[in-house]
Amino acid sequence: MKEECGIAGVIIHDPAPPTNIVAFKLYYALYALQHRGQDSTGIVVFDGSKSRSIKSMGLVSEAYSREKLQDIVGYVGVGHVRNATYGTQSIENCQPFVLNFKGGVISISHNGNLVNSAELKDELESEGRIFTTALDAEIIGLLLVKELLKLGPADAIKAVMRRLIGSYALAIMINGDLYAVRDTIGNKPICYGEIEGGYAVVSESVALDAINGTLVRDLKPGEIMVFKKTGEMECLQTVSGDFAAHCVFEYIYLARPDSIIDGQLVYAARERIGKQLALEHPSDAEIVSPVPDSGIAAAIGYSRESGIKYLEGLMKNRYIGRTFILPHQEMREMAVRLKMNTINENLRDKSVVLVDDSVVRGTTSRRIVDMIKKAGAREVHLRVASPPIIAPCYLGIDMPTRAELIATHKTMEGICAAVNADTIGYLSADGLVKAVGIDKNRLCMGCATELYPVPVPGEKCYHDKQSKMADFVYGGKKDE
Amino acid sequence: MKEECGIAGVIIHDPAPPTNIVAFKLYYALYALQHRGQDSTGIVVFDGSKSRSIKSMGLVSEAYSREKLQDIVGYVGVGHVRNATYGTQSIENCQPFVLNFKGGVISISHNGNLVNSAELKDELESEGRIFTTALDAEIIGLLLVKELLKLGPADAIKAVMRRLIGSYALAIMINGDLYAVRDTIGNKPICYGEIEGGYAVVSESVALDAINGTLVRDLKPGEIMVFKKTGEMECLQTVSGDFAAHCVFEYIYLARPDSIIDGQLVYAARERIGKQLALEHPSDAEIVSPVPDSGIAAAIGYSRESGIKYLEGLMKNRYIGRTFILPHQEMREMAVRLKMNTINENLRDKSVVLVDDSVVRGTTSRRIVDMIKKAGAREVHLRVASPPIIAPCYLGIDMPTRAELIATHKTMEGICAAVNADTIGYLSADGLVKAVGIDKNRLCMGCATELYPVPVPGEKCYHDKQSKMADFVYGGKKDE
Amino acid sequence: MKEECGIAGVIIHDPAPPTNIVAFKLYYALYALQHRGQDSTGIVVFDGSKSRSIKSMGLVSEAYSREKLQDIVGYVGVGHVRNATYGTQSIENCQPFVLNFKGGVISISHNGNLVNSAELKDELESEGRIFTTALDAEIIGLLLVKELLKLGPADAIKAVMRRLIGSYALAIMINGDLYAVRDTIGNKPICYGEIEGGYAVVSESVALDAINGTLVRDLKPGEIMVFKKTGEMECLQTVSGDFAAHCVFEYIYLARPDSIIDGQLVYAARERIGKQLALEHPSDAEIVSPVPDSGIAAAIGYSRESGIKYLEGLMKNRYIGRTFILPHQEMREMAVRLKMNTINENLRDKSVVLVDDSVVRGTTSRRIVDMIKKAGAREVHLRVASPPIIAPCYLGIDMPTRAELIATHKTMEGICAAVNADTIGYLSADGLVKAVGIDKNRLCMGCATELYPVPVPGEKCYHDKQSKMADFVYGGKKDE
Amino acid sequence: MKEECGIAGVIIHDPAPPTNIVAFKLYYALYALQHRGQDSTGIVVFDGSKSRSIKSMGLVSEAYSREKLQDIVGYVGVGHVRNATYGTQSIENCQPFVLNFKGGVISISHNGNLVNSAELKDELESEGRIFTTALDAEIIGLLLVKELLKLGPADAIKAVMRRLIGSYALAIMINGDLYAVRDTIGNKPICYGEIEGGYAVVSESVALDAINGTLVRDLKPGEIMVFKKTGEMECLQTVSGDFAAHCVFEYIYLARPDSIIDGQLVYAARERIGKQLALEHPSDAEIVSPVPDSGIAAAIGYSRESGIKYLEGLMKNRYIGRTFILPHQEMREMAVRLKMNTINENLRDKSVVLVDDSVVRGTTSRRIVDMIKKAGAREVHLRVASPPIIAPCYLGIDMPTRAELIATHKTMEGICAAVNADTIGYLSADGLVKAVGIDKNRLCMGCATELYPVPVPGEKCYHDKQSKMADFVYGGKKDE
Repeated sequence: MKEECGIAGVIIHDPAPPTNIVAFKLYYALYALQHRGQDSTGIVVFDGSKSRSIKSMGLVSEAYSREKLQDIVGYVGVGHVRNATYGTQSIENCQPFVLNFKGGVISISHNGNLVNSAELKDELESEGRIFTTALDAEIIGLLLVKELLKLGPADAIKAVMRRLIGSYALAIMINGDLYAVRDTIGNKPICYGEIEGGYAVVSESVALDAINGTLVRDLKPGEIMVFKKTGEMECLQTVSGDFAAHCVFEYIYLARPDSIIDGQLVYAARERIGKQLALEHPSDAEIVSPVPDSGIAAAIGYSRESGIKYLEGLMKNRYIGRTFILPHQEMREMAVRLKMNTINENLRDKSVVLVDDSVVRGTTSRRIVDMIKKAGAREVHLRVASPPIIAPCYLGIDMPTRAELIATHKTMEGICAAVNADTIGYLSADGLVKAVGIDKNRLCMGCATELYPVPVPGEKCYHDKQSKMADFVYGGKKDE
Repeated sequence: MKEECGIAGVIIHDPAPPTNIVAFKLYYALYALQHRGQDSTGIVVFDGSKSRSIKSMGLVSEAYSREKLQDIVGYVGVGHVRNATYGTQSIENCQPFVLNFKGGVISISHNGNLVNSAELKDELESEGRIFTTALDAEIIGLLLVKELLKLGPADAIKAVMRRLIGSYALAIMINGDLYAVRDTIGNKPICYGEIEGGYAVVSESVALDAINGTLVRDLKPGEIMVFKKTGEMECLQTVSGDFAAHCVFEYIYLARPDSIIDGQLVYAARERIGKQLALEHPSDAEIVSPVPDSGIAAAIGYSRESGIKYLEGLMKNRYIGRTFILPHQEMREMAVRLKMNTINENLRDKSVVLVDDSVVRGTTSRRIVDMIKKAGAREVHLRVASPPIIAPCYLGIDMPTRAELIATHKTMEGICAAVNADTIGYLSADGLVKAVGIDKNRLCMGCATELYPVPVPGEKCYHDKQSKMADFVYGGKKDE
Repeated sequence: MKEECGIAGVIIHDPAPPTNIVAFKLYYALYALQHRGQDSTGIVVFDGSKSRSIKSMGLVSEAYSREKLQDIVGYVGVGHVRNATYGTQSIENCQPFVLNFKGGVISISHNGNLVNSAELKDELESEGRIFTTALDAEIIGLLLVKELLKLGPADAIKAVMRRLIGSYALAIMINGDLYAVRDTIGNKPICYGEIEGGYAVVSESVALDAINGTLVRDLKPGEIMVFKKTGEMECLQTVSGDFAAHCVFEYIYLARPDSIIDGQLVYAARERIGKQLALEHPSDAEIVSPVPDSGIAAAIGYSRESGIKYLEGLMKNRYIGRTFILPHQEMREMAVRLKMNTINENLRDKSVVLVDDSVVRGTTSRRIVDMIKKAGAREVHLRVASPPIIAPCYLGIDMPTRAELIATHKTMEGICAAVNADTIGYLSADGLVKAVGIDKNRLCMGCATELYPVPVPGEKCYHDKQSKMADFVYGGKKDE
Repeated sequence: MKEECGIAGVIIHDPAPPTNIVAFKLYYALYALQHRGQDSTGIVVFDGSKSRSIKSMGLVSEAYSREKLQDIVGYVGVGHVRNATYGTQSIENCQPFVLNFKGGVISISHNGNLVNSAELKDELESEGRIFTTALDAEIIGLLLVKELLKLGPADAIKAVMRRLIGSYALAIMINGDLYAVRDTIGNKPICYGEIEGGYAVVSESVALDAINGTLVRDLKPGEIMVFKKTGEMECLQTVSGDFAAHCVFEYIYLARPDSIIDGQLVYAARERIGKQLALEHPSDAEIVSPVPDSGIAAAIGYSRESGIKYLEGLMKNRYIGRTFILPHQEMREMAVRLKMNTINENLRDKSVVLVDDSVVRGTTSRRIVDMIKKAGAREVHLRVASPPIIAPCYLGIDMPTRAELIATHKTMEGICAAVNADTIGYLSADGLVKAVGIDKNRLCMGCATELYPVPVPGEKCYHDKQSKMADFVYGGKKDE
């Protein structure tokens, strides 16, 4: 269930001496977005004539040195952190994607997933174009270059957006100007803020906090923002904005609790989710315990609503990095225990409400419930902060196929037995909507409802091809 | 306030084929003890004829590779993680300390601080002995070798203990047998447990959890335990055990909450501390927020006792490693914010009870209170989970000098103003004792009381030189 | 004067089990070609369905680990070592260049320099194509893909060759077949050989020696060789072969002495160069000393012809890697001395013939002559194994601009004074040709003659646009 | 046959500002001595109050960074490079050995081997002393500390020398003064020179060249030199100097050719060795070829004396670092070929005199002769620049046991057949002495004569216990 990226862009106006403050601000912003991707990271900075970059596999703390950061001087730049899916963990796929074209140099940081990438790739390859990475950012870059030969940057971006079906939050640097783009359904988060002497665009507001910035607002669905080196800023709305499909999993699991996304503090949303869970699935257990870290706020909410005592029963090791495991059953168990330990005294002989963010394959849940029972808990009542996941995500959340999703195949009793819980309670879809605090038709819950905001081959799309939105939802292909 | 070490020892009986399971178990145990020391780490394993070691600066996750771990084969070993004080961060000072002597090979992992190290060093140097490290473990090793020329291992250790004034938890490997030692006042934690086919001794019980072990019990003050390669185990009590001086800061700050130390679950002790704080320093604030991570359990306790809503206002970045800071005021602020962010919406216009583990210099507290006020909190009522720190620690906790301790110089009002809080409330010494659940005369609270369990030049010791304990407390120097 | 690359390609037929022997053979071949490029290196291997790569900055000895090499399984692959010119030392520019296109996957290793790269780049960019590297290999790749949409691989390569003006030795992997290509003037060396169960193509024959292969022959100018996975091999001659312009600097300086290039053993060529130098510029000095390593064979030749005693006066430090230099005059001198030391006793009071491969800016020569005089030599008679360098190289040898070339501005006396020699003697162009043993009109000596085998804007080309060769020399643009 | 160390010491007088020039000079000196040890290296610098060190496994080029070197400030320091024998390659055994004692701090760099180390170790261990390394330097340090409690530094060193049997060149830093020591038989080389503002002591004069220094002279056997921070210098002669036993293998193999050791330029000695070989073992071959690098000067000498043409037939790869070898016969052959390649054209159909420095086990010689024959040589006449090696070295050269030495077991014909040569000729012992140019009774040739300059259990010593020298040769034990 992990697959996401974090993006950032920073521009400052007219620094008298060449400066590396942009590189350092991007570095801090990426540090704050590290939870969105741990496999590779990159920063590209432009100084008016040339761009310099650092790219590396691994964590932000490992990828950059003070010396290298000081070397990449410039007034504008973009950065990226990435979780790689299997088979794409190579330096070639490290973003930002940088390209040179007739009109200059472009750097692209992308978060999201294009549903029609294969189709677009075919089309581009049929024109004799090549791909040097496995990135959607390269597809976007190639389309953008085609448009830039005919149009100005903002219009070119708009034209490209008409071709893209799927999710994309983009920080794009074109010849020293910074562009922020949000997909027309507002699926992936992206916001902008003011920083000393300039602006920043980031995936989550915590990255603004980390660079001493002030959140101004989220980009609207389909919005293009232009930040010029002169200090000018411009907003272009490409769609009506009547419609949105914000990813509900940002609130459930992915985003940092101290982020504000589309007007909702993630922490508060999770707390309300917990309260709603308590209303929908009460329990007469003695304590409420979270699966840390993503379950903490929901468990606190459950406790508050239910009046059941909040008591931590699981403790995360804060120092876990790479670990080495011997091919040996006991060693594998040790590796799990190393990451999360039980506080037996808090659990012994207790009936426990265990609050987890979601149940995907069921295997992790089973392992945790077993640990809690081994610690002496009398009963475990699993409360899940999301509806049953019954379908894949096509917009960038790393869900498995239907075949691997436990809720696709089993009854509620079956799931409960499979994870070894005494009772199980999932949040209802309506309850989730209510708790998140965003209108139902502005949220994407495809993984729980099998209804998607964009057309996916073999899946249902809840948008009419004739609708006002169709232009963008269908990648500008309404009329076909 | 950081200076501690974590130690571990593992022995298994008669593994048919040579095994690297001991190395892997030590590696996992050290991973679980990483919070006790992040500057260097080492593992030494003995296979019956020779010892092999890995030593490295840095974290456990960086120091060991699968390849190296597989190479160090043997049935018994000791390991160490260390926080280095300024000027001692070199590979020479990386423990375990290994020495060869007439009788074989010795490896020593030490946690603690000897009060009479200078005196012992002088004495040893006067005999023409040399030092190749800055470690107390080397002093202990040299004394031990002198005794081993005359006595058997257990008696030799006992004889050395008579010379040591201060704190020491030791895992010692002498020619393939494992010895665990706890100082006569039981200041530093050390416990032992059963593992598959053998035993382990560790600083905290969480390290047993991490290697699939079962906690048997803490070592008693002055206890020597012998684990032989034959599977035999022996306990030697060198002092009556009537007396102890367990470090109270393990409960307040240092230990992992899921550890059980001297019979007390740290998490539960912290929760009771919070409750006691609420009784001693009630408040009519609207929310209780912890300074994460060490203040979490206490804040939950405060909330429970007071009925004030528990709501997190500060969020820690889980990915912080080394960071690079430009010599620039704004950059320094960013570095702080990167490590801990505020959840403004939870704090805005609120009156907040902020629960922190301790106030040492006051500078960190000030910075945090300022952040919370900047986030919009109306009032900040600081509640401190320990009494005012007015004196240094001589037994291993990295406290500053009296000159730097804020509580030594300022009135309560002065401290409150200095940290920018609206009210401040420290836990009373009696309240702390009660909350920890250990008898007052079995706890060391020297930093708060200026009364120390061992004689320190220039400080008061609450032990009579004529007492039954004096032998050990005074390093066998009663008669002088 | 350093700028070159080394390339390699290996194919084996039908290995029953998947094998990493191709990766290891490429690794060994690149090790043997390390002198052609020390800045970055890469290997790409294809297993019939997917390609895997390793790319890294730095030396072959640092870039590859046994573990990584074992992971890249396949029956065919290409490799590269590279010297980067200033501003291009980034991981993006590490070859082989890998691209995906409509028809599959292509990997390209290139050695050489395209004279018309800017023009080709413009043309491609005008079609909306992008560049993600600074490499000629990307230009070649883009052109190749355009042709592959219309033609089969060999014809496509042939079509691309018609567009390229300049030097290029190529090892190309297209969907699991291996193609070797030599530019139409045969400027850059490339040969092929038989290895156990397959074939290899490499820049120099020493790389075949290193992988237990047998040199079959050099590729002919304009030749395309096809090595299929089935074991078939095919040769395509795209030009008559009447004409060639082999780079003379391979013999003077660049290639390893144990390589055989275009039928000439480099060692023997250098020895003959030394003999010719002795004939053209005799001396009555007492000893002949080389500037190691490239001057050794020539000095031996000079000694043999002249009867003057061969005695080494300069010694190279064999362990020089990166060195750190303080910003301090003495330190800079030390850094020079560290790399090359004088054997004073061999030089003291002697009249010395010093044989160096070439004089470019004159600064290095000056420094060496000064060292030798400081060591006590009475006289230094500089003998240069090449004619005066008076013009840049456009085909890949890293020569400076005319402004920086000492021979462009100074008389022979002026050069002699500038380098502090007592006499100076350059090899004549005719003498060089004779010594190398290759027909004058099959050698490129543009840097010495200002006459180039391909048209370079602002320079003279000795080929008539109407000639038979013009097609290829002029990039298929005869008719314009 | 590799086992040696390189040592260096640098002192400068009264630098006004604290300086890191000492660290950099040591770094450069160690770079120049890299051929004497590639396994680990260290530098310790003292600034008047504290010493700072860098220690690392690996090459000088990898061990030091500019940043680290700049940090270790001081006016005096010692350095070391080391070849580790099997089982001692750990960071603990990285020199200089640093110890703290009653009187301050001592750092020791040692090159050599103590014959009576086990005896001394026993004695020290019996006094209750410990060892933390496997180094002779630690034994020397412990003895030195014992004496320093009674005597001044120079007298203490003198007293220690009376206890040491074996070889030792030492650079010792005691509380900010620098001491250079040479064993009483002058076995290991050590010389001193003047540098800007101070002095340096080094294993070979090339290290003085590398730091812009001027060689003053070699230390005499048994000499102690004192370099004080005040600029004073003092020489103490502990033995008459009538006697010496310089290691002959420095001239044959170990030292750099551009070094001057005990008055003899190594290059010139090797050239004379070659001439002598030609006189003793003439040949009617067509060419003389060296085994590079150590055989080059001898081959040139052979060529000059015999009149046979010098022509290189073997070429070393200058870029060899660590290589990875597959467990596969072909791969092993490739690994050999990678390090040294044949120039077939120079060898084909030739009768070749092959000059190698020595034949130890015979396996390497066999492999090289086979390569040359495979390259097409008609005949190979092996000429060895040393007498047959028939006994081990006890003074630090890494020779195998008698059981592994080919010349111990085989007749001359047997060796010739074993290495696959057509004829074989070893230099005579007398010829070697004559060629080196040092009096016979001032050279150690124990490995060739089985007569050793110091008493070794089970071997013959050519010194009478009653002689004037006996005091020192026998470690001050004459009277026993």
